[in-house]
Amino acid sequence: VTLSASALEGVPEIAPGDDLASMIATAASTSGVGPLTSTDVVVVAHKIVSRAEGRTRSLATITPGARATELATRLGKDPRHVQAVLDESREVLRAAHGVLISVTHHGFVCANAGVDASNAPAPDTVVLLPRDPDASARRLRAALQKLTGTKPAVVITDSFGRAWRHGQADIAIGCAGVAPLEDWRGRTDAVGRELKATWIAVADELAAAADLSRTKDGLRPVVIVRGAGRHVTAQDGPGARAMIRPEAEDLFR
Amino acid sequence: VTLSASALEGVPEIAPGDDLASMIATAASTSGVGPLTSTDVVVVAHKIVSRAEGRTRSLATITPGARATELATRLGKDPRHVQAVLDESREVLRAAHGVLISVTHHGFVCANAGVDASNAPAPDTVVLLPRDPDASARRLRAALQKLTGTKPAVVITDSFGRAWRHGQADIAIGCAGVAPLEDWRGRTDAVGRELKATWIAVADELAAAADLSRTKDGLRPVVIVRGAGRHVTAQDGPGARAMIRPEAEDLFR
Repeated sequence: VTLSASALEGVPEIAPGDDLASMIATAASTSGVGPLTSTDVVVVAHKIVSRAEGRTRSLATITPGARATELATRLGKDPRHVQAVLDESREVLRAAHGVLISVTHHGFVCANAGVDASNAPAPDTVVLLPRDPDASARRLRAALQKLTGTKPAVVITDSFGRAWRHGQADIAIGCAGVAPLEDWRGRTDAVGRELKATWIAVADELAAAADLSRTKDGLRPVVIVRGAGRHVTAQDGPGARAMIRPEAEDLFR
Repeated sequence: VTLSASALEGVPEIAPGDDLASMIATAASTSGVGPLTSTDVVVVAHKIVSRAEGRTRSLATITPGARATELATRLGKDPRHVQAVLDESREVLRAAHGVLISVTHHGFVCANAGVDASNAPAPDTVVLLPRDPDASARRLRAALQKLTGTKPAVVITDSFGRAWRHGQADIAIGCAGVAPLEDWRGRTDAVGRELKATWIAVADELAAAADLSRTKDGLRPVVIVRGAGRHVTAQDGPGARAMIRPEAEDLFR
């Protein structure tokens, strides 16, 4: 099997209300990548989804509260940015080493609740995660189908740091039409032994593969992954929220 | 940029002392993948490295101690397997929900210290992680260069679970000739803003991309990744150990 990931050239800067599906379909067919098919996975950096959905905030409009001010002083951050992080957080897990790790309202554990100033549309503006990234993925998939007559899967990504390891890897925060986890538990390996713990985070691996095909200058937010058609489903499926480990099962909070 | 990951057909079962480099070079040139080049990344599931290095243990030879017996009873595991895990662990971080999370002697945080019965060469045998996976990667790279006259990078992988998220993703436990982390911190994005937190776990993303190109039946342990040549270095570099977050900076132990 060969998997390929191709970053699309020609996706323009995105503004609130922009029609992402049309921009993606056009970029795919005018680039060397070729028209979308129903076995493709369209991997989209969340920032353009967030921008299209107007999920940005101007720091000038934010008045930090007491907790944000206290945390900002302790961590050496802009208190308005910290307030934006708190507004996106269900719970703050850690605040140390200049880092704020929280649980977002979606249930993701990540730095700064995904609130980011890099690649923001304007200075002093932060980009938030989409309010419901699985719903965003489903809408984008439906719009792509309407436009192109094909039904590729959609994965929406962000770069998350990891416990215990340096650096960030892209993971799926939303998806539609892809089985996010491939369960081999109870199945057998090549010589008939049970594969006990094998439960593959397919959507996260798709996100990681896509990230490798582009640089971080922010101009190639859309990647078409081919050769992963066996993971693409006709139904939209459970979305990336199925990958969130429930708090009760989580040993590292 | 297009990245591709192709799982090699025709890598035979591996036994202690086998010449992995020769098997990989042969499989690459006899399969549709074609001969290796110096911009390729050869991604190898650690199990075949461990087998070639004789890093397996027969459970019949293991006498569990008191701690292994106690943990095994509590977690519902084979006490000899738990003893093997303890022997590979510097520290046990969590033992709950039937799972043992430990810090290996290398410093990796993972389930069962990487000790695994799936895909083992014989029943009642467990496969351990290589003793020094970066050294294994360097040796394999040198052997590939000697055989083929080209100098691909080598990444050795395992499937690790993650805090907070279900499922496993493949990550790099050893590497040679690839910059494991790409540091964009201090560089600027497309419109000139500093990319503050961008430090990309390239070696882990390579491992994840490779994993997607094969199924888990254990017969395609070697994947050739192309299109990632900008991450390949002439020097072997710091290895995957550079990705381990030091305990003092780790917020989640």
